[in-house]
Amino acid sequence: MRKLNYEKLITAIQYWIKDYFELANADGLIIGISGGIDSSVTAALCVNAIGKTKVYGLSLPCESISEDIEDAKLIAKQLGFNFKVIDLTSIYRKYLNDLTPFISPIKKATANLKSRMRMITLYYFGQTLGNSLIVGTGNRAEIAIGYFTKYGDGGTDIEPIGRLYKQEVREIAKLLKIPERIINKPPSPGLWLGQTDEGEIGLSYNTIDEILYRIDNNLDFEGLEKKNIEKVKALMRNAEHKLKMPPMFDIGNITS
Amino acid sequence: MRKLNYEKLITAIQYWIKDYFELANADGLIIGISGGIDSSVTAALCVNAIGKTKVYGLSLPCESISEDIEDAKLIAKQLGFNFKVIDLTSIYRKYLNDLTPFISPIKKATANLKSRMRMITLYYFGQTLGNSLIVGTGNRAEIAIGYFTKYGDGGTDIEPIGRLYKQEVREIAKLLKIPERIINKPPSPGLWLGQTDEGEIGLSYNTIDEILYRIDNNLDFEGLEKKNIEKVKALMRNAEHKLKMPPMFDIGNITS
Repeated sequence: MRKLNYEKLITAIQYWIKDYFELANADGLIIGISGGIDSSVTAALCVNAIGKTKVYGLSLPCESISEDIEDAKLIAKQLGFNFKVIDLTSIYRKYLNDLTPFISPIKKATANLKSRMRMITLYYFGQTLGNSLIVGTGNRAEIAIGYFTKYGDGGTDIEPIGRLYKQEVREIAKLLKIPERIINKPPSPGLWLGQTDEGEIGLSYNTIDEILYRIDNNLDFEGLEKKNIEKVKALMRNAEHKLKMPPMFDIGNITS
Repeated sequence: MRKLNYEKLITAIQYWIKDYFELANADGLIIGISGGIDSSVTAALCVNAIGKTKVYGLSLPCESISEDIEDAKLIAKQLGFNFKVIDLTSIYRKYLNDLTPFISPIKKATANLKSRMRMITLYYFGQTLGNSLIVGTGNRAEIAIGYFTKYGDGGTDIEPIGRLYKQEVREIAKLLKIPERIINKPPSPGLWLGQTDEGEIGLSYNTIDEILYRIDNNLDFEGLEKKNIEKVKALMRNAEHKLKMPPMFDIGNITS
């Protein structure tokens, strides 16, 4: 893995956020606060960049465990940004209830539905407040392997930590004084009970990070397990469509 | 404006849809059927490309006028694809009701909420069916000036008519035998009563098309009104963020 100057990195990201915020002539930054490390780090960077009064964090539980909500409250209290808990469970159940006569729910679709409901709630809230930017909390590892919902948690306006490997996010989390409890708990998208990133993907973030780093920098794979490399490459191929705008038919030389 | 061979164009788009569908190993194509010209044309192209049994059209009224639902039914019947009307009004009202204690609704935000609810319903339905692609129905004019909701009707997997100017969509609509009633009614995103594209934008599609065509092809603006050109250019600038992936902080030379 690369060696970074994390102090410099934090400062640079904060300037970038501030520049983008000012260029967009925005009134506020909106962040979904899951109680996990990525959103906590992102929130800390935003607060440092533009000040806590213009940062709005929303905890959006949807059949979520109370521990995550408590961790979201903890980071909100520590950083001091505007914070609300808006429980989406009952809207989500109404959604399922009204759609079930047309099609029977399956777990993957209901999980993505939750993630997309969070996105639309963040935008609804942000737009009602004024000219807001929705700040994504994805890191390089999740984004590259597509471990996010297209137009769900992937539906954002800016991604401050989108090019940082997961271990780098952990490093800056320490410097940003994110509570250890948040840094150390197993990452989860919070879409069903007991779901964890690493359990679902079947690889640790340290492994994913290292493979990605080698791919990103065109390095050899010495010392890494072949089956893990193949797995990451396959995930990346499947994620391609999530990482670009929808393709359009190109009119090319149809002109007569 | 350019002169196209519309018969050739239709065939080429249909091959493109078929190729993309097969490459993605998809089971179905999902389209939101508004009862307007763009979705009708898109549905006809999809049906011709892969056959009506694998095409699913959803009419998703949300406080919509019954005329639009009737037009959606009309095109569905004519083309013979799988079709359902799923009324989102009561989920939408539940959403507003549950969010209102946190923030008071404003018209722009509620309109975008409707559009995003349609997107998530299309994805929910498609994912529950199997490996589906959500087919967008945007045309060059709407897309270029950003007359769509980011992660709402803009949240799709492919955009078959995304590079056709509105008048070109009208031309192929005739060849595809879309009912005249659908071709001739004023285009509307159907987000509130009486809303029309041209009324809201303040320019006719013929004007927008012509200006865009000149811009797209780097031609002079002779014969066009300066204030309209400036308006289109301003809309395009504001739409830039909708037409690219969320920007990420680039780590550049932070490496120590």
